[in-house]
Amino acid sequence: MTAVTLRADERIDQLYSKDIQIIQSPTVFSFSLDAVLLGAFAQVPKSRKTTAVDLCAGNGAVGLFVSSQTNGQITEVELQPRLADMATRSIALNDLTDKMTVLNQDLLTVTETIAKDSVDVVLCNPPYFKDQPTSQKNPNPHLAIARHEISANLDQILAVTSDLLKMSGKAYFVHRPERLDDLFATMRAHRLAPKRLRFVHPKADREANMVLIEMIKDGKPNGVRILPPVVVYQANGEYGEEVHQLLYGN
Amino acid sequence: MTAVTLRADERIDQLYSKDIQIIQSPTVFSFSLDAVLLGAFAQVPKSRKTTAVDLCAGNGAVGLFVSSQTNGQITEVELQPRLADMATRSIALNDLTDKMTVLNQDLLTVTETIAKDSVDVVLCNPPYFKDQPTSQKNPNPHLAIARHEISANLDQILAVTSDLLKMSGKAYFVHRPERLDDLFATMRAHRLAPKRLRFVHPKADREANMVLIEMIKDGKPNGVRILPPVVVYQANGEYGEEVHQLLYGN
Repeated sequence: MTAVTLRADERIDQLYSKDIQIIQSPTVFSFSLDAVLLGAFAQVPKSRKTTAVDLCAGNGAVGLFVSSQTNGQITEVELQPRLADMATRSIALNDLTDKMTVLNQDLLTVTETIAKDSVDVVLCNPPYFKDQPTSQKNPNPHLAIARHEISANLDQILAVTSDLLKMSGKAYFVHRPERLDDLFATMRAHRLAPKRLRFVHPKADREANMVLIEMIKDGKPNGVRILPPVVVYQANGEYGEEVHQLLYGN
Repeated sequence: MTAVTLRADERIDQLYSKDIQIIQSPTVFSFSLDAVLLGAFAQVPKSRKTTAVDLCAGNGAVGLFVSSQTNGQITEVELQPRLADMATRSIALNDLTDKMTVLNQDLLTVTETIAKDSVDVVLCNPPYFKDQPTSQKNPNPHLAIARHEISANLDQILAVTSDLLKMSGKAYFVHRPERLDDLFATMRAHRLAPKRLRFVHPKADREANMVLIEMIKDGKPNGVRILPPVVVYQANGEYGEEVHQLLYGN
């Protein structure tokens, strides 16, 4: 494990199931269960030829969580310099500099750096909420950009996703169920066919508050599969078995 | 209970939770769990002014299952004379002729009989499978029409649904999850916003094989709610509590 320097507001958190350490900061960005579930849902081919891109990398959590799946290359694209720097240091901390790099770049221009039609897997935990004049945004600009569609909206992100992917390449997104109609319309507009969906319910008797989506570029329509749901908490308030395993590795 | 005449291949089945008796025939049509779940999922306003239409009525099961919810009028639209006749006799059998009627008519022409923009609730358990030259269809034409999009496809059915509904009227459909992308695209094309979805899993650890959908005419986008799933069977092979209650009333 490589030594890295932490800033005053930073701490190192551990995802025990993957033996991954991540630099976090409540001031600018902390990964949450969304990223853990997305990392577990995504399927990144093992081959050294695989190229994967995380389009909304934040502090690099999702890319780090899938890193053990592949011998290929993972590129973390992050607009905010502070977060890109955290991701870079977390990659070093986990000795993953041979297969992970950070692009501190606006995802809207990423095809200037990464060739179109060249990527096997796109990962994305995008901002969930529309940027509307009336929307209540976090006064912290780091957190506002992560949560609201301020610097990129769903249509733009899925356009870039489709541009990057090879034919039959796959994208893995986590989003909010209330946006499902927008998601389906926008996927179709950008030649991305939904293939597997998994809904995340906080408890067995509660409505879903997340959806995990696998999509395939130029895939056939009408092949959607709905996996068994993730139930985060048991009735007694403890984590369900699957989520406990993902967080703690046992 | 009114006496009715049964044909040789017919029997009377009972949905105990609703105290409803239905004339069934394995030769032409029998309702299944899909219809029971759709009837329980649908919300038909109590008011005497309510008008509800079941567009793919078959033997009338869904309309009969929701009949206790409302004091309004329910119209069962069914193309096949034999099935329309079964529905008519089941309505008599349950003494529901005051609030239920059967239209033996092609749903594609139903707006010649029922005024556009006049209906509060549309119900539909449509044919699930595309009518493709390669598709294996049931050699029994009654069953083939019920299962394959031979006499009406999803786009046509949702067009009629939208035509019939008042603004803010609601439609309740059951369909197969693999058609979810077609469903979302076609709803949007016909001014129907998905509002509540409920997936039906045969067991807790199995993929969904049905989806229940509530849609609202001219409803706002991005308000999708994913209800807790229906799990049909417990691990021990017995019906789960909710489904047992729906079928047996206890």
